[in-house]
Amino acid sequence: MPGLRNPQLNKNGELIHLLSIERLPREIVTHILDTATNFLSVNDREVKKVPLLRGKSVFNLFFENSTRTRTTFDIAAKRLSADVFNLDIARSSTSKGETLLDTVDNLSAMAADIFVVRHSQSGAPYLIAQHVAPHVHVVNAGDGRHSHPTQGLLDAYTIRHYKQDFSRLTVAIVGDVLHSRVARSDIHALKVLGCPDVRVVGPRTLVPADFAQMGARVFHRLEDGIRDADVIIMLRLQNERMSGALLPSSQEYFKTFGLTPEKLRWARPDAIVMHPGPINRGVEIDSAVADGPQAVILSQVGFGIAVRMAVMAIVAGNEA
Amino acid sequence: MPGLRNPQLNKNGELIHLLSIERLPREIVTHILDTATNFLSVNDREVKKVPLLRGKSVFNLFFENSTRTRTTFDIAAKRLSADVFNLDIARSSTSKGETLLDTVDNLSAMAADIFVVRHSQSGAPYLIAQHVAPHVHVVNAGDGRHSHPTQGLLDAYTIRHYKQDFSRLTVAIVGDVLHSRVARSDIHALKVLGCPDVRVVGPRTLVPADFAQMGARVFHRLEDGIRDADVIIMLRLQNERMSGALLPSSQEYFKTFGLTPEKLRWARPDAIVMHPGPINRGVEIDSAVADGPQAVILSQVGFGIAVRMAVMAIVAGNEA
Amino acid sequence: MPGLRNPQLNKNGELIHLLSIERLPREIVTHILDTATNFLSVNDREVKKVPLLRGKSVFNLFFENSTRTRTTFDIAAKRLSADVFNLDIARSSTSKGETLLDTVDNLSAMAADIFVVRHSQSGAPYLIAQHVAPHVHVVNAGDGRHSHPTQGLLDAYTIRHYKQDFSRLTVAIVGDVLHSRVARSDIHALKVLGCPDVRVVGPRTLVPADFAQMGARVFHRLEDGIRDADVIIMLRLQNERMSGALLPSSQEYFKTFGLTPEKLRWARPDAIVMHPGPINRGVEIDSAVADGPQAVILSQVGFGIAVRMAVMAIVAGNEA
Repeated sequence: MPGLRNPQLNKNGELIHLLSIERLPREIVTHILDTATNFLSVNDREVKKVPLLRGKSVFNLFFENSTRTRTTFDIAAKRLSADVFNLDIARSSTSKGETLLDTVDNLSAMAADIFVVRHSQSGAPYLIAQHVAPHVHVVNAGDGRHSHPTQGLLDAYTIRHYKQDFSRLTVAIVGDVLHSRVARSDIHALKVLGCPDVRVVGPRTLVPADFAQMGARVFHRLEDGIRDADVIIMLRLQNERMSGALLPSSQEYFKTFGLTPEKLRWARPDAIVMHPGPINRGVEIDSAVADGPQAVILSQVGFGIAVRMAVMAIVAGNEA
Repeated sequence: MPGLRNPQLNKNGELIHLLSIERLPREIVTHILDTATNFLSVNDREVKKVPLLRGKSVFNLFFENSTRTRTTFDIAAKRLSADVFNLDIARSSTSKGETLLDTVDNLSAMAADIFVVRHSQSGAPYLIAQHVAPHVHVVNAGDGRHSHPTQGLLDAYTIRHYKQDFSRLTVAIVGDVLHSRVARSDIHALKVLGCPDVRVVGPRTLVPADFAQMGARVFHRLEDGIRDADVIIMLRLQNERMSGALLPSSQEYFKTFGLTPEKLRWARPDAIVMHPGPINRGVEIDSAVADGPQAVILSQVGFGIAVRMAVMAIVAGNEA
Repeated sequence: MPGLRNPQLNKNGELIHLLSIERLPREIVTHILDTATNFLSVNDREVKKVPLLRGKSVFNLFFENSTRTRTTFDIAAKRLSADVFNLDIARSSTSKGETLLDTVDNLSAMAADIFVVRHSQSGAPYLIAQHVAPHVHVVNAGDGRHSHPTQGLLDAYTIRHYKQDFSRLTVAIVGDVLHSRVARSDIHALKVLGCPDVRVVGPRTLVPADFAQMGARVFHRLEDGIRDADVIIMLRLQNERMSGALLPSSQEYFKTFGLTPEKLRWARPDAIVMHPGPINRGVEIDSAVADGPQAVILSQVGFGIAVRMAVMAIVAGNEA
């Protein structure tokens, strides 16, 4: 859509909101990852704090509950010395009938600097970003099935950390791709960074053919999908899918798509195994793989803090 | 009640608790507003923090839930560099049968400096203030129908900001005055500051005649009540009133007392429209007014942070 | 168990986790109490903060809800300048089926420094301590009926404060000893510190004879149990015990074991009365005693903050 301004960037092309990895220039993605490398060392220091966001107010607006993701943003913000306010939205004014945008206006008026937004409706962070006063920056922490850009970035960071160069990689994303905002953000990140072979792998009910339009190759057999892969990203199978019309049972799913040490041999010997967590042992991944030498799942967690610090530090440093 | 000591003041007449605007001397109210002006600039700074309450412990004791008000105190306290503890009272020892005063004694013993108290029972903050150790200051964040003094002060701040001088103003408070602690605190603040014409406006069921005893003029027709007003304060209509015996319906209420651009013309052309929030669009206020040029509702929010900073800084600086 | 390494200590015999007072050397217990004395003055200062844990991340992992205990750790950690993260475990990933150890691994990977753990299962903090990365320190904030070591230490601190020397003291612990982790930790602390006469007092259903194996003398009549005692520790009677098979009724319990001013005369005239809180007035303790001159219940609360500061500062300063 030439001519249509990207709401994530200011006139100078600098990042002011992080809403989606889609349409982000490669330089910006790379800049985030490079900045995260600098912050990674902060997490290993005696005093795990830098004063970059001192006196800034970060609001966690989680319209959909997620203790884990909220906590990672909370940690990242506090390590940047920001003040963090966790709003219990379910118990707040929105439940008294206040509109989303009135809530946002009110919080803006309290001199907020960053809104970290999770919402069950795709597009809610865009709506908020278009509405807020210029001094507020919006970071999408997951909206519906649409996007989870900091997860996409931390996955990209993890892959770069272990594999350096994206230009020859085969990356397989396995599982419930259809319902996964992680998968969509991963695909966008990998495409932007020049990964030539991105594959989505799973049963037809969870991996429809139209993912090809995003530039991913679609596979319905695990053996085909992860053959010679450098990176395997296993997706969490939500409990609510297991007993529905989409899947026969979790045991059946594990038999066909669960990653075991035997099946992992189809991939390259130096393949890494990733997972956004929390993992379902014995459903999408065998414990021997999750705890094995090729799993980098806990490294992802640590990188995630650094990537979120980078995103918040970058957007807060740019003016609308 | 001459001779009866005001529990909000120490022997030197300095503010040590903020429980109600009633019986506060005008100099103290003015001192709070002047101090708030100083803090207002803090909220616009790059580093929105002053070290006035560094190392102090502020406890938010919300026996009645209010995410919005709690958040404004949380922000105000952190911008003063205090440590803030939000107690989930509903899940705490009080629900194990501990008495209110035992809970308060325990928290005092943890070396608390300020209790911010919201309670559904009128008078609860007084009870606590009379009971606490001398090192603890109590700020009333709303008790029953009785009082919400920081809201009264921020409303006074807002009016002073836009109209400067109280001595010639007509202020109309419209809506469910009967159940509103905001209305009571506004009336007290306006009377203390010398406002000659305070009006309360609404149906007979929600605006009984005895408000005249507080020094307010009582009106039951919106046209009469807001005619030539300089300031209109619209009150939120609680959902629980709408389908009860007090009101026929919210549509009917909007028709009679909802503020529309047409009705707003009855007031002075430069009248400002205020609301404590959260607003009910289409119930007590039309969106065209709420979002219109005369509305100062979002300014109130920002002033509210500064006023709460002022109150906490002042009480913490005075000794019992 | 000679030869079996104590998981609480490193090779140099320094405290790296606090899991139980059992098997702690007397020097370490004394060192904690001495350190607490230093911190006690911090709580009386104008700026109640020391920078010892600046930039450290403390996670409150309360698998069992306890607002009061969580708050005391929260206060203690913030007065040491740490960043504190309160995880709402009930709403977090563990409720999505993640295992306890996966949750712990994830939080470790976020560069945690201290886990404060409360769990309904005895032994859970041990399990976590054995599992965590070397940079993480675990503090038990109560596990099942097993142990509540910081309560034991603050009780020891309180006794030392008022009685100085343990070597001639008679201490009576009264009430539901069977279900009480506080009682177990108190007995261990008193034994380690050389108290010659520790008594447990209560009905046969709540004070079984096998407490003698822990070195305590068992009494089933209050008069015998507290006769000539220097210290009386009253335990809270949980509501769930009152109407069960263990006790006839709370009135009956109060008549037999509730501490009144008359019964208190059986103890030494200078005996102190302690209680871990929250107290049940008129169940295990009469208000005239709880509010009387011999009660030191609120002092315990203040000492508790200092003791928790000491424990966190000590473990964080030692390497695994």
